[in-house]
Amino acid sequence: MLSTSSFAPPQVDLSHHLSSEARLRKPNPMKAIWKLTRRRPNMVSLANGDPHFSLYPIRRVEFEMASVDEVDPVASWRKAGPSAPSTKFVSSSYEPCALPLQTALQYSHGAGLPDAQRAVTELTNFYHSPPDHVCTLTLGNSDGITKCFRLLGEPGDHFLADEFAFSSVTNVPFAQGIKWVGIKMDAGGMIPAELEKTLENWDPARGRRPHVLYIVPCGQNPTGSTLSLERRKQIYEIAQRFDVMIIEDDPYYYLQYDSPSAATTSPDTPFVPSLLSLDVDGRVLRIDSFSKIMAPGMRLGWITSSAFFHEHLVSYTDSSTMHPHGFGQMLITEMLHGPHGWRIDGFDRWVRSLRAEYHRRRAFFLDAFAKTVAPTGLARANPPEAGMFVWIRVEIEKHPRFRADLRRISGNPTAPRTNVKELMEELFERCLDSGLVIMPASIFALSADPKHDDMEDPIEDRLNYLRATFAGTEEAMEQGLSILAQTLREFFADEIRAIA
Amino acid sequence: MLSTSSFAPPQVDLSHHLSSEARLRKPNPMKAIWKLTRRRPNMVSLANGDPHFSLYPIRRVEFEMASVDEVDPVASWRKAGPSAPSTKFVSSSYEPCALPLQTALQYSHGAGLPDAQRAVTELTNFYHSPPDHVCTLTLGNSDGITKCFRLLGEPGDHFLADEFAFSSVTNVPFAQGIKWVGIKMDAGGMIPAELEKTLENWDPARGRRPHVLYIVPCGQNPTGSTLSLERRKQIYEIAQRFDVMIIEDDPYYYLQYDSPSAATTSPDTPFVPSLLSLDVDGRVLRIDSFSKIMAPGMRLGWITSSAFFHEHLVSYTDSSTMHPHGFGQMLITEMLHGPHGWRIDGFDRWVRSLRAEYHRRRAFFLDAFAKTVAPTGLARANPPEAGMFVWIRVEIEKHPRFRADLRRISGNPTAPRTNVKELMEELFERCLDSGLVIMPASIFALSADPKHDDMEDPIEDRLNYLRATFAGTEEAMEQGLSILAQTLREFFADEIRAIA
Repeated sequence: MLSTSSFAPPQVDLSHHLSSEARLRKPNPMKAIWKLTRRRPNMVSLANGDPHFSLYPIRRVEFEMASVDEVDPVASWRKAGPSAPSTKFVSSSYEPCALPLQTALQYSHGAGLPDAQRAVTELTNFYHSPPDHVCTLTLGNSDGITKCFRLLGEPGDHFLADEFAFSSVTNVPFAQGIKWVGIKMDAGGMIPAELEKTLENWDPARGRRPHVLYIVPCGQNPTGSTLSLERRKQIYEIAQRFDVMIIEDDPYYYLQYDSPSAATTSPDTPFVPSLLSLDVDGRVLRIDSFSKIMAPGMRLGWITSSAFFHEHLVSYTDSSTMHPHGFGQMLITEMLHGPHGWRIDGFDRWVRSLRAEYHRRRAFFLDAFAKTVAPTGLARANPPEAGMFVWIRVEIEKHPRFRADLRRISGNPTAPRTNVKELMEELFERCLDSGLVIMPASIFALSADPKHDDMEDPIEDRLNYLRATFAGTEEAMEQGLSILAQTLREFFADEIRAIA
Repeated sequence: MLSTSSFAPPQVDLSHHLSSEARLRKPNPMKAIWKLTRRRPNMVSLANGDPHFSLYPIRRVEFEMASVDEVDPVASWRKAGPSAPSTKFVSSSYEPCALPLQTALQYSHGAGLPDAQRAVTELTNFYHSPPDHVCTLTLGNSDGITKCFRLLGEPGDHFLADEFAFSSVTNVPFAQGIKWVGIKMDAGGMIPAELEKTLENWDPARGRRPHVLYIVPCGQNPTGSTLSLERRKQIYEIAQRFDVMIIEDDPYYYLQYDSPSAATTSPDTPFVPSLLSLDVDGRVLRIDSFSKIMAPGMRLGWITSSAFFHEHLVSYTDSSTMHPHGFGQMLITEMLHGPHGWRIDGFDRWVRSLRAEYHRRRAFFLDAFAKTVAPTGLARANPPEAGMFVWIRVEIEKHPRFRADLRRISGNPTAPRTNVKELMEELFERCLDSGLVIMPASIFALSADPKHDDMEDPIEDRLNYLRATFAGTEEAMEQGLSILAQTLREFFADEIRAIA
């Protein structure tokens, strides 16, 4: 059960993880007055510069939404286009609705409007049943993660992450003076034993031992890997043992698929339990988002955390971005509680139908890959169990100019052994020249510190991957993979000719 | 003319004002690829995990808005309520509109969508004609200001502000290790000579000389004061001379009124030129917001700055909140450029009609004040030229327990001379007990540093003010001011009895 009280004590005292910035933050004296007056009902207020809603030039917002009455609502919606059956979520100043417009468009506080907060709490309870946590609305996934970084990070800190990680996120805390330590992965995602090794062998001369782990457990970006329940338990146990906070960034949670050999993903396939659902200590800050299941421009998400971190997130939100916009809060509140809303069973039908749709897209991609790229013998695709990305391994060892003896020649025991990096840069440029944008592994790789990290198998030698998405159109996948196949052939063959 | 190129050199090199954090920020490598591909048209992309719009469960958003065809649209809208004539702004995936839904609800970049950016640029050109500046969308006023603080502020810095300032803003940078230096004000707002004195006499032992001034030029919160054009020019000249950046926070710009003796504010009354419009150096970061002229829950605003700071703001936005939500961008784009939009002349009619409405509210407040509070002889109201707030001076010297000899008695030459602070706290509590919330000056006062600041006339002795708003209903104003009058009478009279 979720606790609704934001004053519940945390399960374990984790307050030492707070950044100095968070400790320095002073409560806003205006909030203190607001709280004071809440305890005294029927007050007359001359206090706040809140425009009266009769002066808002807007009185009604109508969102035309997919109907979720169908068995497979996403397929119906997508195929019928403008004529697909729809339903309308309305927030209005004068009509009955779950979140009246005048409430949604007034100032509120950092956790979000109580009605919207209840909506995301309902979702969190339904899918995760976390032990004792509270939801805080965010302005989207990126806002949620970066707030957690500020809440926990100190200049000089090292944070832990998958060795290949989403660079739009890992790029962020550099400005705070925070560095990354990448943990080795395999096809199943982060390897728990590698995480343990990094923490166990931490050299204090490098700074304090990492106390924050950033992880994407489903359909990891960029590798597409998904952590098994067993790995999740191991990682959580290691985090407990070494007192590490976990930022669980899980935008692809709802996009978990059955095996590629299945025709589709059954609506009955369960979701792998999240790290949040295992969190008895209150050391998980889980980040959820509507971007992948509704639309990125919604810029709305939520963080689920212990009440202690919730309080600090709210305080930080009140003194930075403030609460999220009213429009998104209207939409999700009407969606879950409105007179024409989907309710939670409709939402669940939508997301289960959506993963069936992405299952079809994944199948289309893998099929096109099997027909175009695989026959070259120059690249292999790792079918993901979740998310939107396929991690393509380029068989770079087959390239005529591939070298594996650079370390021996240079005599530098921490330098790369191979020229994988240079060859992959060339391949990326050739793809661009042929009209294809595909993401090179290099931009996701967290570089190691030769002084401290194990340089036996440096990441530079393992950059022979490309990240491709199956979120786009079928045309884009077909064309893109054809270009990739042709470019691979030319890149590997031209060179043979050049050398011959 | 606004420059649309974000690569234009700044008018004066002000790059030394950037915080170390902003300097440390690394460009996101994914953005680099995005930029690269923009230069090569017709690329096929397998790059980004952008959900296809046919999978958004939403295909149309309709905003029911006030019609602005009337002479005094705000009055018509407010009086007719649900039956007032309206117009509809629509963003859709399938209908003609200025900002199609699939564009508005996709990922975009930190400056905001080009269409929405053009909309706020058009507003900025129309009202300010700034010399050479670029607009960056924000997630509301608070987001804009706090981003500027991060962009410019360094731990140990002192920022300058009005000695009474909006504490929800001034509270923010404490967490960054930044302190405030309050500049003395009179009924006309910040006194330029006091600003100059502070900068001229700065003791370097205290840290570097303040290089950031935060100022609310119109309807200042809490004092309601508005800077004359002459003061603006003087302040700008001082900022140039002492190399100070100016954060011009101007949410009440559109609420500038004619004199209280006028029946209403004429639509023809010009707006006082903003600091931005005077900014030849590129040292003004102007913060605009839709909160007071449309609705606070829109959480949408913009910063106008030199191209140099714009670039940094965009980079910071990309690596924190990301761009604002699509709903607000739809609304403002349809408002200014949509087939049923207000266009700029309609927007202008709305804001000029809105200030006439607030003029009426101010008149109602002042009239109620004259009838209830003024006859007590215990408080005076300073009629504001702009904004939503009246700064009420309590004639605290008349209180039987007022003391002005505390410094002499304590022998401490920097202590308060009076017990104003304690008496005002009592008055505030008594108001609460009588059912009235009204803001005490103390929560807005920037405390002075006795070691360095001029303690001749410390702010603790000038806390005998209350901030009241006329943004609420007429009932709230009437009741609130009656309670205030009664409470003042009792507070001043009870004590006479107590002493007698």
